Amino acid sequence: MVHALFPSWPDVAANLINVAAGRSPADLVFRGGIWVNVHSRECLPDHDIVVASGRIACIVPDARHCIGPETQVVEAQGLYMVPGLCDGHMHIESGMLTPAEFARAVIPHGTTTMFTDPHEIANVLGLQGVRMMHDEALLQPINIFTQMPSCAPSAPGLETTGYEITADDVAEAMTWPGIIGLGEMMNFPGVAHADPQMLAEIAATQRAGKTVGGHYASPDLGPDFAAYVAGGPADDHEGTCETDAIARVRQGMRAMMRLGSAWYDVQRQITAITQKGLDPRSFILCTDDCHSGTLVNEGHMNRVVRHAIACGCDPLIALQMATINTATHFGLERELGSLTPGRRADLILTPDLTTLPIQQVWARGKLVARNGLCLAECPHYDWPDTARRTVRVKQSLTQADFAIAAPTGANAVRANVIGVVENQAPTKALQRDLIVQDGLVESQGDTCQIALVERHRATGGVTNAFVSGFGYEGRMAMASTVAHDSHHMIVVGTDREQMALAANRLAELGGGITLYRDGTELALVELPIAGLMSDSPARDVAAKAEQMVQAMIDCGCTLNNAYMQHSLLALVVIPELRISDKGLIDVRRFKEIPVFEPLS
Amino acid sequence: MVHALFPSWPDVAANLINVAAGRSPADLVFRGGIWVNVHSRECLPDHDIVVASGRIACIVPDARHCIGPETQVVEAQGLYMVPGLCDGHMHIESGMLTPAEFARAVIPHGTTTMFTDPHEIANVLGLQGVRMMHDEALLQPINIFTQMPSCAPSAPGLETTGYEITADDVAEAMTWPGIIGLGEMMNFPGVAHADPQMLAEIAATQRAGKTVGGHYASPDLGPDFAAYVAGGPADDHEGTCETDAIARVRQGMRAMMRLGSAWYDVQRQITAITQKGLDPRSFILCTDDCHSGTLVNEGHMNRVVRHAIACGCDPLIALQMATINTATHFGLERELGSLTPGRRADLILTPDLTTLPIQQVWARGKLVARNGLCLAECPHYDWPDTARRTVRVKQSLTQADFAIAAPTGANAVRANVIGVVENQAPTKALQRDLIVQDGLVESQGDTCQIALVERHRATGGVTNAFVSGFGYEGRMAMASTVAHDSHHMIVVGTDREQMALAANRLAELGGGITLYRDGTELALVELPIAGLMSDSPARDVAAKAEQMVQAMIDCGCTLNNAYMQHSLLALVVIPELRISDKGLIDVRRFKEIPVFEPLS
Repeated sequence: MVHALFPSWPDVAANLINVAAGRSPADLVFRGGIWVNVHSRECLPDHDIVVASGRIACIVPDARHCIGPETQVVEAQGLYMVPGLCDGHMHIESGMLTPAEFARAVIPHGTTTMFTDPHEIANVLGLQGVRMMHDEALLQPINIFTQMPSCAPSAPGLETTGYEITADDVAEAMTWPGIIGLGEMMNFPGVAHADPQMLAEIAATQRAGKTVGGHYASPDLGPDFAAYVAGGPADDHEGTCETDAIARVRQGMRAMMRLGSAWYDVQRQITAITQKGLDPRSFILCTDDCHSGTLVNEGHMNRVVRHAIACGCDPLIALQMATINTATHFGLERELGSLTPGRRADLILTPDLTTLPIQQVWARGKLVARNGLCLAECPHYDWPDTARRTVRVKQSLTQADFAIAAPTGANAVRANVIGVVENQAPTKALQRDLIVQDGLVESQGDTCQIALVERHRATGGVTNAFVSGFGYEGRMAMASTVAHDSHHMIVVGTDREQMALAANRLAELGGGITLYRDGTELALVELPIAGLMSDSPARDVAAKAEQMVQAMIDCGCTLNNAYMQHSLLALVVIPELRISDKGLIDVRRFKEIPVFEPLS
Repeated sequence: MVHALFPSWPDVAANLINVAAGRSPADLVFRGGIWVNVHSRECLPDHDIVVASGRIACIVPDARHCIGPETQVVEAQGLYMVPGLCDGHMHIESGMLTPAEFARAVIPHGTTTMFTDPHEIANVLGLQGVRMMHDEALLQPINIFTQMPSCAPSAPGLETTGYEITADDVAEAMTWPGIIGLGEMMNFPGVAHADPQMLAEIAATQRAGKTVGGHYASPDLGPDFAAYVAGGPADDHEGTCETDAIARVRQGMRAMMRLGSAWYDVQRQITAITQKGLDPRSFILCTDDCHSGTLVNEGHMNRVVRHAIACGCDPLIALQMATINTATHFGLERELGSLTPGRRADLILTPDLTTLPIQQVWARGKLVARNGLCLAECPHYDWPDTARRTVRVKQSLTQADFAIAAPTGANAVRANVIGVVENQAPTKALQRDLIVQDGLVESQGDTCQIALVERHRATGGVTNAFVSGFGYEGRMAMASTVAHDSHHMIVVGTDREQMALAANRLAELGGGITLYRDGTELALVELPIAGLMSDSPARDVAAKAEQMVQAMIDCGCTLNNAYMQHSLLALVVIPELRISDKGLIDVRRFKEIPVFEPLS
């Protein structure tokens, strides 16, 4: 696929100069707005922004000399002209949307630049999947830069992904036009122990002059943290409190503070600026993960900026953290992130800098959204069958595939059970005494079955175990091919027949989320692209996801973010107990443990 | 010449990690100092800086676990540990010293990084001269990054330089290891009018991902300024007042504020920060031009930082403007400009952050200066004959070469005279009535002769004219091969015989500055490298330059900075009247004018 890459500044410099000098007419002029200047940190009323070739030619108090008969003039009197917002780190797959549909959802919120790490598709389709995401990203009317995923698998040895990312893959990706750096280096123990593959990936990125994303998900700020920083990651979005943010900034990293659908890490970190008075230049706002419902109902980076302001942050500093700070971090400050000559004409018009209602969004000099409505075309990549048929199971599953045999002769067992904890990503490693019927161990009370169905290589592998905390009742099962990070299929159910129905349904559809009760499908979210994403509009996906949540409630589940809990149960990097294609994994010790404790 | 380039962060990452983790001993530890953190803008007492492989491995409150039996330990109790200072833009040739000797002079002042534009040698020796400067720069124990000169000749058509720089030269230089960007784009009218060569040079730089230096030397902030900014220069050091600085920062450029030997542009611009409260991140300190005497007697970047603080700037902000702001601007913030892991271990130890006495200077983990004494070796490049024999004149000059014939039959003439103005770079275009003796026009009163002797191609060309303002008396002449920017030879004198003596002396020596009175050489500064630089120590050059100033005084000259005035008389880009190999140039109209006005 050939990309019509946006012409560079030097490509169009002569035109910008001639327009700025008044020798050629502008394509577009915003008249009389309030220039939000994120370099000087000022609001400058009564300025005109002059646009040519999709870039800003000049910003002057009076641009009449740049206006010709064909020049489009936008009256911006009384409106703030704000640089388009940048999301410093995020995963498009979290929206269960393709890059095109994600873009369509966030453009009306004023997001014009995203730094996205397609870590999920990397686990399913490897480098070729990353390339597809990258290619669709480059088709969009806004700027989507790709961070090359660094850690697939996330937990080598503890899981089998569809593909693995190598240091050579990273080096190759660094030559692609849309790659901005390395995606979050999650293997922080690996870096801290100088793992050669992790260092080779970082080195390839640094030598390409690009930015190494960090991910240090530990409160320990001792030698392990120091060693991680010495390895080269340039930012981190895993901080959760003021101490974390300050430590990262002092060490010369940028602290990315996230407000995602389920991440609330801004409020506790932003006090580093608002109370401790640190230089704000090293702080960046991001979302990390947003569900489609959040995008439809709440917003995107505008939500994060509003929240930062609500936390007491000066609005101009909050905007800097979503514009110039981000651009500078990625070496793009002469390309975007401020409203100044040469940069892409990406901007928002808003009447209020605190509540930030987004009236108009312009990207590369084109009106892309007005009053919440996306006006831009967001072209779809022609996803090949290799991306659309990724759910490979050996054969139709039956309830027998989910049968958990008790140790021979046992009437009761003590099982190691994954304990879901409300509002927390970590699980608990529980033990439950369960009964045996006809040689099989059965769900009981709040403890039901969980299965990980291998779906990348059609090995026929099914890992069975138990999970507690969802509160499911009746004969039901829920299955999802979004199963971080290896993205096999996770099936949770109280009934093996329903589990087989759900699993087969997803195999038939090529991925998604389904919930069966008593033989009937109560809700379905189709995710045909890699089993992770839909190419339908966010509104449709959000509506289906909402139906799914309702179906889970109907089955007795009362957890907050219950679907997220479901999809994280195979995330074998977060303690305490998870499931993978290798078995039940004790993430405290990074080793497999048996489903049943030996009877004493 | 092969350079042992300093190993990169990824080259040594494994060692840094192991040292930070306490698994390998550090090379060097600074114990218990006050960490001046230019990211967070804080002073953090009681920190240890741990160094390995010339880079910082970690900075922690207690680094005992990093210390082995061979580790060098430096007690820094009570001392501020400040990042080595960066000079954001400067010309080494202005010190009349080679890069090695310049480095040796500034290291004791705490300068560990310079961004230098070898514009002068480019005019004499073209790309090969730039390469020699670049190569000697890379030999030094501190960081000297080269900005590829953009404008040789400075005034195309009005002067003939030794060599010319082309856009292809710029593109080639961008592949050299020590090139950081394009040197100041002085041809601001060219950029504002979309001159293809200037745009090609800028494009080659931008496409290489490097920084385009600016130079907009005009108070006009109208469409010409807007057009210049639209052309791509990323910084400017030609601002002289608060309005200039603010305009540049608002337009997304970095405002470089200079304090050179003869530039005093900090005080009037820094109020943009201290009074107007602009975000200081876009401001940078630099020297632009420092004479050897300033380096010997006053300092270098430490002098600039002290001055900024004396102007009311917060010391930490002043230091940011000489460290991290500069590094960020050139895309080097992960390499230097702060004391944080992975960066080069370039630092100063000082007991006071306001007066900034420089006790120790460390570069790449080595002690390079203590209490004003340079301890590092600053290796000399093996300058070839092409660089040492650049003064080429056709034959020995005689007083006849300096004879200015009056128009036939005239007894008196009205001459166009270059009027030197005290403390200003611009000259005045004066007219003086002069007497004629034996058909020749003679010096009279304060008006004496000036000659530009062609010295690049031995054409035998001598341009003769008159200059006023030096106050010379008696039979004397002064000659210099430093003659901005084309660097022919400028001879100023009251007596043609002395003028010939002085010119021949420089031709014999291969360049320098000399002053003759009554047949005797009163003072001499040898500048054998390109006729611009000495490879002697700064102290020696400064002493000789001081003798030269004294000799000028002895001959009746009472101007401040009289030598600088002398050396700028061929600078045909600054109004009003200058001399070049093409003739007498009216810089107000960019055209040659006759030495004599037609008699009415």
